[in-house]
Amino acid sequence: MSQPIAANPDRLLPADPGMRRVARSLYSLVESLPIISPHGHVDAAVIEQNLPFPDPAALLVTPDHYVTRLIHAGGVPMDQLGLGNAPVDSRRIWRNFCAAWPLFEGTASGYWIRQEFEHVFGLRDEPSADTADRIFDAIAAKLEEPGFRPRQLFKEFNIEVLATTDDPLDSLDSHQALAADPAFAGRVLPTFRPDAYLNIAHPEWQAKVERLIGSAAGGVSGYAGYITALEGRRRYFVENGAVSADHGVRTPATLKLDDAEAARLFERARTGKASPEDREVFEAHMMYQMARMSVEDGLVMTIHPGSYRNHHAPTFEAFGADTGHDIPFAVNYTEAIRPLLQDFGTAKDFHLVLFTLDETVFSRELAPLAGFYPAVYIGAPWWFLDAPDAMLRFRSAVTETAGFSRSSGFIDDTRAFCSIPARHDTSRRIESAFLARLVAEHRISEERAHELIVDVVDTAPRRVFKL
Amino acid sequence: MSQPIAANPDRLLPADPGMRRVARSLYSLVESLPIISPHGHVDAAVIEQNLPFPDPAALLVTPDHYVTRLIHAGGVPMDQLGLGNAPVDSRRIWRNFCAAWPLFEGTASGYWIRQEFEHVFGLRDEPSADTADRIFDAIAAKLEEPGFRPRQLFKEFNIEVLATTDDPLDSLDSHQALAADPAFAGRVLPTFRPDAYLNIAHPEWQAKVERLIGSAAGGVSGYAGYITALEGRRRYFVENGAVSADHGVRTPATLKLDDAEAARLFERARTGKASPEDREVFEAHMMYQMARMSVEDGLVMTIHPGSYRNHHAPTFEAFGADTGHDIPFAVNYTEAIRPLLQDFGTAKDFHLVLFTLDETVFSRELAPLAGFYPAVYIGAPWWFLDAPDAMLRFRSAVTETAGFSRSSGFIDDTRAFCSIPARHDTSRRIESAFLARLVAEHRISEERAHELIVDVVDTAPRRVFKL
Amino acid sequence: MSQPIAANPDRLLPADPGMRRVARSLYSLVESLPIISPHGHVDAAVIEQNLPFPDPAALLVTPDHYVTRLIHAGGVPMDQLGLGNAPVDSRRIWRNFCAAWPLFEGTASGYWIRQEFEHVFGLRDEPSADTADRIFDAIAAKLEEPGFRPRQLFKEFNIEVLATTDDPLDSLDSHQALAADPAFAGRVLPTFRPDAYLNIAHPEWQAKVERLIGSAAGGVSGYAGYITALEGRRRYFVENGAVSADHGVRTPATLKLDDAEAARLFERARTGKASPEDREVFEAHMMYQMARMSVEDGLVMTIHPGSYRNHHAPTFEAFGADTGHDIPFAVNYTEAIRPLLQDFGTAKDFHLVLFTLDETVFSRELAPLAGFYPAVYIGAPWWFLDAPDAMLRFRSAVTETAGFSRSSGFIDDTRAFCSIPARHDTSRRIESAFLARLVAEHRISEERAHELIVDVVDTAPRRVFKL
Repeated sequence: MSQPIAANPDRLLPADPGMRRVARSLYSLVESLPIISPHGHVDAAVIEQNLPFPDPAALLVTPDHYVTRLIHAGGVPMDQLGLGNAPVDSRRIWRNFCAAWPLFEGTASGYWIRQEFEHVFGLRDEPSADTADRIFDAIAAKLEEPGFRPRQLFKEFNIEVLATTDDPLDSLDSHQALAADPAFAGRVLPTFRPDAYLNIAHPEWQAKVERLIGSAAGGVSGYAGYITALEGRRRYFVENGAVSADHGVRTPATLKLDDAEAARLFERARTGKASPEDREVFEAHMMYQMARMSVEDGLVMTIHPGSYRNHHAPTFEAFGADTGHDIPFAVNYTEAIRPLLQDFGTAKDFHLVLFTLDETVFSRELAPLAGFYPAVYIGAPWWFLDAPDAMLRFRSAVTETAGFSRSSGFIDDTRAFCSIPARHDTSRRIESAFLARLVAEHRISEERAHELIVDVVDTAPRRVFKL
Repeated sequence: MSQPIAANPDRLLPADPGMRRVARSLYSLVESLPIISPHGHVDAAVIEQNLPFPDPAALLVTPDHYVTRLIHAGGVPMDQLGLGNAPVDSRRIWRNFCAAWPLFEGTASGYWIRQEFEHVFGLRDEPSADTADRIFDAIAAKLEEPGFRPRQLFKEFNIEVLATTDDPLDSLDSHQALAADPAFAGRVLPTFRPDAYLNIAHPEWQAKVERLIGSAAGGVSGYAGYITALEGRRRYFVENGAVSADHGVRTPATLKLDDAEAARLFERARTGKASPEDREVFEAHMMYQMARMSVEDGLVMTIHPGSYRNHHAPTFEAFGADTGHDIPFAVNYTEAIRPLLQDFGTAKDFHLVLFTLDETVFSRELAPLAGFYPAVYIGAPWWFLDAPDAMLRFRSAVTETAGFSRSSGFIDDTRAFCSIPARHDTSRRIESAFLARLVAEHRISEERAHELIVDVVDTAPRRVFKL
Repeated sequence: MSQPIAANPDRLLPADPGMRRVARSLYSLVESLPIISPHGHVDAAVIEQNLPFPDPAALLVTPDHYVTRLIHAGGVPMDQLGLGNAPVDSRRIWRNFCAAWPLFEGTASGYWIRQEFEHVFGLRDEPSADTADRIFDAIAAKLEEPGFRPRQLFKEFNIEVLATTDDPLDSLDSHQALAADPAFAGRVLPTFRPDAYLNIAHPEWQAKVERLIGSAAGGVSGYAGYITALEGRRRYFVENGAVSADHGVRTPATLKLDDAEAARLFERARTGKASPEDREVFEAHMMYQMARMSVEDGLVMTIHPGSYRNHHAPTFEAFGADTGHDIPFAVNYTEAIRPLLQDFGTAKDFHLVLFTLDETVFSRELAPLAGFYPAVYIGAPWWFLDAPDAMLRFRSAVTETAGFSRSSGFIDDTRAFCSIPARHDTSRRIESAFLARLVAEHRISEERAHELIVDVVDTAPRRVFKL
């Protein structure tokens, strides 16, 4: 069953020979550009401490819930993938993964892993029950080489900027250490992610807010202290290189409350008396406040609503969050985001990146919004949508209304450090494929396409994220 | 105006020469595989009694509401298509159909009928007012040949399994007779379809439920008897070869009520006092109960929500149900199906096939759900969506998130026995076309595509429907 | 940076050589057919008075909110585009536009403008900061030529029918003058557009309704007078050549109230006491009434719901309506339109064209509705959706369910007179491209495609709009 891994230089490019020729030439212009990753979930400490990566399963399987979920759907319980409390032999996890490999054919994870195996680890074998041990040994051996430490790979991968995602009370020690280290040339930037402090239904909201006010409100108490503390921590993030604040919300609702009403809601939540409606209203109000603060402190605001987190409660209880069952639902931005845009949609230098997991929003709402409001940028397709066909659907959906200038540039959003080059490479190939079609259909000139491919791959993320 | 009917062996395959070569080779692997039809609406008695089919209009026009609806939209009243009580000359109906033939260009029905004409009836003429009588005579002559009886066609069509759709109180006589007949080699399986017993707004609900409890509750009365009777009839279906239970519901809502509350609702409905909200709640509860029973008795559970049945009341009143005006609407699965999946989403050997008429659900909800829950399979595009472009959109929408292993395999869902080969052939061609694109774009190897085409056409329906 | 403008005769046709050959031959059949424009926003007085067009900016930039919105999103304030009260030098507006030209690459506006520049004005230069003045001068010179007057261009553009959009109390003087002028051979038809008289939340509703009743109710007062006046003005429009009545509504809701209830609502609105719910109910009722009147007087009824008008209040207050921030939202037709269709869906000679800005509605709702109801036609993709990829998605979404006979034909919906040929040409190329794919994939014969391309381009709008 073992097959050579496809390493075709034309992978993901269009089949039509004329389009492929154009796509190749576009891709060649961006293939080697540095990686700009303005949003992701790699831990800064991993780079800073530069420890060797653990074994293959702990690096590539257990922490990647896009991988574990499909093996789970195929019938392997979560605890046999290393997610439970009981230790499982890494090699056994790895065999489960390799035996399940055919499940990944045609998936985004499949494309990334295949390229990662080939380009990062130099593997030629197709994963399968038969090849599992051989591949495990080969990767394990690589992981012991000094060239496979995080900082060496950071350089090898040609990463220029890598943004992490951080708790507002994070000390940002690792970021500071990296910035101060003359031996490390990359930029590792923190991102302000206050979800747990804004969502009053979060199980730790009260505790976190007490700690926030206690440590960062400068003695001010109550709602005023809460706002002061958030503003203060944002400033601290800015001082430490942050360029954006990221918001995972249930819906894109926004709302402007007056201070007295907001304070009343805040106190109700603090004393455990808030209703589900209060949660909606308060979170909507805080989105408005976050926009106000972004206008003031310059942090790019990113919003990603529309995921039902931890859909399967028994799995959440046994294995925690981020275990593969965050399920998207329908989203409507047009009315919901309006209160925020009334006041800040044309604010000077305000950048608001709107993501969606609901593809219907791209052509219907995001392209028209971004085609009018200077503040609004269309977030790249991500999460389930950072895959070849989905990215092509995205470009087709937004370009005719909003052109190429109003989208965010690729976002890898990953915890899987070693997959970063494969993810960006996939995006670059697909952007080349899309533009090649426009050239082949005489919609744009090849000369202009040469400018646009560099713009969408390199200039857009720098411009949108103020890098 | 008469044209030769296109009988091109490459029909429905991609135009790009490179892709077409691959598609041809994939299609050749599945072209002659037996037909597995795990859900449809052919009457088992038709096969059992093996009577000749009636005339062309009564076979191909009047009972196929996908055909009559378009002719109706084109201005021909329903009663001139044989749907009213007054008898209409078959030849006149047939002329109406042939004169309307250009309306079907580019439609799914058009592809099937054209292939059926060519491959089942050996016709070369394009239907038109001019050719109507000649075609009528040719088909009528064929229908008198002994080789055109249902059982002979069953064999000729290479059907291995054909599931019917049956009332829970059906005796299943025809299924038993076919199973006991050594001269008949096919499998004709019943399917448990209890809609009218679960939807308390159904005009015959009370009468049907009385009959159900009276005949199958073993003396138990009330809600407990109702549940007992449903369980008993499911067992009877299992004993007679059923592999699935099918549920047409307004929304995908599911809910777990305690027995006392369910019994209260049941009694309110029985005494005609249920409100519209009661209907929603009770049907949602019964979907939960149906899942529980499927976990216990092994019947695959299939759900298809989101159709506004009998949209045009005057047509329904004059001509009955299934007359071409069931109109889809937007559906949201993520929250609605959650109560069911909390308890049964990872239940051993439970298979839950989720269909949709709302394409937005494929990438947004069904692929992520099926990519995590072992129980969930993505229902094939059917009803308005079992057409070439719609099937390609389906594969594009779900594959990158859920791969190829999480979908149900093709479902023909048809009442039109003679269209079964054309429908399955269309699906096989489109699956080949989709995989050929992935090969041509170097996303999967041709060797792997050879495995996948057999998997999606043949292995998937056997696996998902436990055949 | 200046590039030659692509004038490729194959623009917008498919890249695959086999498909392109077919597409070319289809396009050649319709390239020179007269333009039928059954809905748009050109002012009849412009044609009637035949005055020279003003300068390039006032012709091509300031009044086209698809152009100004993207430049605004790119950071240029509205008042620098000529939209404010303070006069701005035309040449400065023009330079802003030319400098922003790269923003339009890949957009619908970009395709139209490029073709307009090339084919109407004979320009070879790519717009840019460098070429702005040269292009301005070239266009300005053309605008002074006698051949560039509206009537000459009307003939040059080969326009056969041009429908305008008019207030119910419009005198239709210009239409009458054109119809009476033996020197003018085209047809310029009024369209009855009563939105402001039906939407009781419209700021001028009360004043307009008083005027309507005062001038056209024949002395009848109150709700009865209101209905009488609307009927009377419709008759006046019919007498002056109108073929359709157009309705821009928030949602597609329809409802049949009895006269007494409608009169009560009407009086509440008239005395300023109507609630937001009243608005919904009354507008839904009036949609039903408009359908009833259409059945009686023969005007084709067109509905376009689902746009959040004037989304950014500060821009609306400063610059008025139609300034680029009407933002679509999700729409559901199936339930909403049902009351109207119950009574009029099969009414003799009633034509109801349903438009949408929410693409999900095309395959899910509009194709099934139009595939059953003789009255229903699927409105062409327009507004943000009259662009190459969106038009291809439209055909793919509706054809397999509804065929080619159930859609409206292209609608340019434009205020920009000089863009009319480019818009229709784009549509003709894309229809050719879509049909060419069906031919190349052996779904339809090339002979039938030759009939269909003429049908969708020329016959359909004549048939649907009763021309």
